[in-house]
Amino acid sequence: MTAPQSAFDPRWLAGLDTLAEQATGLSEPNPRVACRIIAPDGRAFEGHTQRAGGPHAEIVALRAAAAAGADLRGGSAVVTLEPCSHHGRTPPCCDALIEVGLARVLVALRDPNPLVSGRGIERLRAAGITVELLPPEHPLAAATRALNVGFLSRMERGRPWVRLKIAASLDGITALANGASQWITGTAARRDGHLWRKRAGAVLSGSGTVLADDPRLDVRLVPTEVQPVRVLLDSQLRVPAAARVLQPPGQVWVYHTPAQPADAAALRARRAALEATGARVQEIAATPDRPPRTRPRIDLAALLLDLAAREINELHVEAGQRLNGAWLQAGLADELLLYLAPTLLGQGGAGLAQIGPLSALTQGVALAYTEVSPLGPDLRIRAQVLAPQAPAPQPPPPTA
Amino acid sequence: MTAPQSAFDPRWLAGLDTLAEQATGLSEPNPRVACRIIAPDGRAFEGHTQRAGGPHAEIVALRAAAAAGADLRGGSAVVTLEPCSHHGRTPPCCDALIEVGLARVLVALRDPNPLVSGRGIERLRAAGITVELLPPEHPLAAATRALNVGFLSRMERGRPWVRLKIAASLDGITALANGASQWITGTAARRDGHLWRKRAGAVLSGSGTVLADDPRLDVRLVPTEVQPVRVLLDSQLRVPAAARVLQPPGQVWVYHTPAQPADAAALRARRAALEATGARVQEIAATPDRPPRTRPRIDLAALLLDLAAREINELHVEAGQRLNGAWLQAGLADELLLYLAPTLLGQGGAGLAQIGPLSALTQGVALAYTEVSPLGPDLRIRAQVLAPQAPAPQPPPPTA
Repeated sequence: MTAPQSAFDPRWLAGLDTLAEQATGLSEPNPRVACRIIAPDGRAFEGHTQRAGGPHAEIVALRAAAAAGADLRGGSAVVTLEPCSHHGRTPPCCDALIEVGLARVLVALRDPNPLVSGRGIERLRAAGITVELLPPEHPLAAATRALNVGFLSRMERGRPWVRLKIAASLDGITALANGASQWITGTAARRDGHLWRKRAGAVLSGSGTVLADDPRLDVRLVPTEVQPVRVLLDSQLRVPAAARVLQPPGQVWVYHTPAQPADAAALRARRAALEATGARVQEIAATPDRPPRTRPRIDLAALLLDLAAREINELHVEAGQRLNGAWLQAGLADELLLYLAPTLLGQGGAGLAQIGPLSALTQGVALAYTEVSPLGPDLRIRAQVLAPQAPAPQPPPPTA
Repeated sequence: MTAPQSAFDPRWLAGLDTLAEQATGLSEPNPRVACRIIAPDGRAFEGHTQRAGGPHAEIVALRAAAAAGADLRGGSAVVTLEPCSHHGRTPPCCDALIEVGLARVLVALRDPNPLVSGRGIERLRAAGITVELLPPEHPLAAATRALNVGFLSRMERGRPWVRLKIAASLDGITALANGASQWITGTAARRDGHLWRKRAGAVLSGSGTVLADDPRLDVRLVPTEVQPVRVLLDSQLRVPAAARVLQPPGQVWVYHTPAQPADAAALRARRAALEATGARVQEIAATPDRPPRTRPRIDLAALLLDLAAREINELHVEAGQRLNGAWLQAGLADELLLYLAPTLLGQGGAGLAQIGPLSALTQGVALAYTEVSPLGPDLRIRAQVLAPQAPAPQPPPPTA
């Protein structure tokens, strides 16, 4: 709730969460923001973030007010994210709000970018505008954070929010021993999976999954304005140029590890073949701790830094048990999006994630369930990955 | 809802579901039934089934009315299960209801026993009492069925209702490769597991689990009047007499398969040692399809017939992946009660149930989720096992 003395009518906040959601699949890599401007005559004008380079939510609302001939002097605005105060792809929204003579602005969430956080609010206040900030527990603040979890992660932690999407049987089987995995879950779950792909700046998979299942990894089952980038981890560029993931629509970024000397020429040829499909192919560091007789593995922390630099907010991972295990064991997975089908498939197939073998239950990857909901005959379970607990302090050894 | 012309005030039904639940852990093997009698002066008298051999719900309510000096002539009764019309451990309740001169009786659920179903209602009607039966979709009828799922199964199908209780990590691991399994789930889930044990006429496990974990399998974490029978499947009587499952409280029934000739004398000795603990030890048929180099396996269909004859209604199975798989592959498991802890334990350990290996996703054990609820940090998922689908009819082969 707003503070008791707030000058804002709570009804002015209603629906701004769903309005901001409409920027999903459109505004990438910009945050999903909604703005409502209330003229002194009572008329309200709304907007949400448009395509990158296009107008922000505030500008859309201001333009709607201008088109209606509204006089906004002395009016109010509610905006889900602190208005920008800097010249980015577009001029600062603060200046536009100041220009029309608004008296009050309510901000649901402060800008998470540590370089500019609070500057928009300061700028508005310096122009004589009364600015209120919602408390963090307010539903609109919470909804704004959830909708922009990737943008916040990139701003605050310098890396994308990493979500592992997995479809499995109730006993945790993601593919039979013979590789059969299509389809374990039903149409409602698969459509929901595309909604989560749509939210993501990039959909990532590994060469094992691409070679086994030849997925497209694009957004098809729900409408979208913008296709997420498809990111393929293929340390040795084994994926053929005919793979469906390399076909339109959208960009494809392929990452590989440095070539072994004996393989350098062949790798260059494979790289050229992939680039001929339009893919961007990039070398990235391998992990130093490569187990013997295994392929080099891409350093996932280095990858996340690169993806953040390329403005990827949410990274949606649809991979097999090996790559899922690597994300979890590196401590770089933030969330699980798990679809559990009402079936038991027994053992001998592939599981959710290769970790371990463990020797104690406390060594497991600790999670916290955040949501469970039915989707057709299936269940969707969301869980956050908890940071590993520091070991309990040990008492000092007894003196000899 | 009752029919529009019903003479029963809907408020007379309120709370009878929870009153009947109070017979849980008490009335075994009798059904859990509640009765409310409304005297013409407006006073109501209630009761639920007591211990076997003690009064049924109707008699408890009638005695309360008698103790209060109520004149029931022309009154009404609501009873969740059709009143008995036969002499069992106690005289027929129908006669008692008739004697006091009631005018109307509402029955939530017909007696499922095909030998007596409808006779109680007929007997009441023959005495001039107006009897109404709730439609099957009425909440009180549904609650009565759910509460007595085991009694109904024994009466209608001649076998207990079989529930597999399993605690696992979110990725379906029930024990690490080194056997560690205590405790994957938290205290709320374990306490809830004891509530389900309490509902059961018998708690069943196998020798593998008893040798590995030495569980008690009794009801300790919640109060109960009656301990379920503990049933141990131990085809070769490998479990030592010191096992905790063989200690008080409650009865223990041990089932084994016929001895191999070379082992007959030793088996007799082991049997005597178990019987010395007070356990009832019984030989039962082995499955004919024993895989080579494996121990004989108890014929679970024969076991269920025996348990039904011994008046076991709900059979609560807490077993390992082998025995769980045997129940499922025999088509004799009715329901899964699954506790999923918010952790990933990787692979190499034990899973929910050994089935397969499968070569097609359609060969899985088909389930339908019936309920999901959080229990502390864990999830409880209930699912019914669907009967195997008959294969689709094949078109006739083309004529040559």
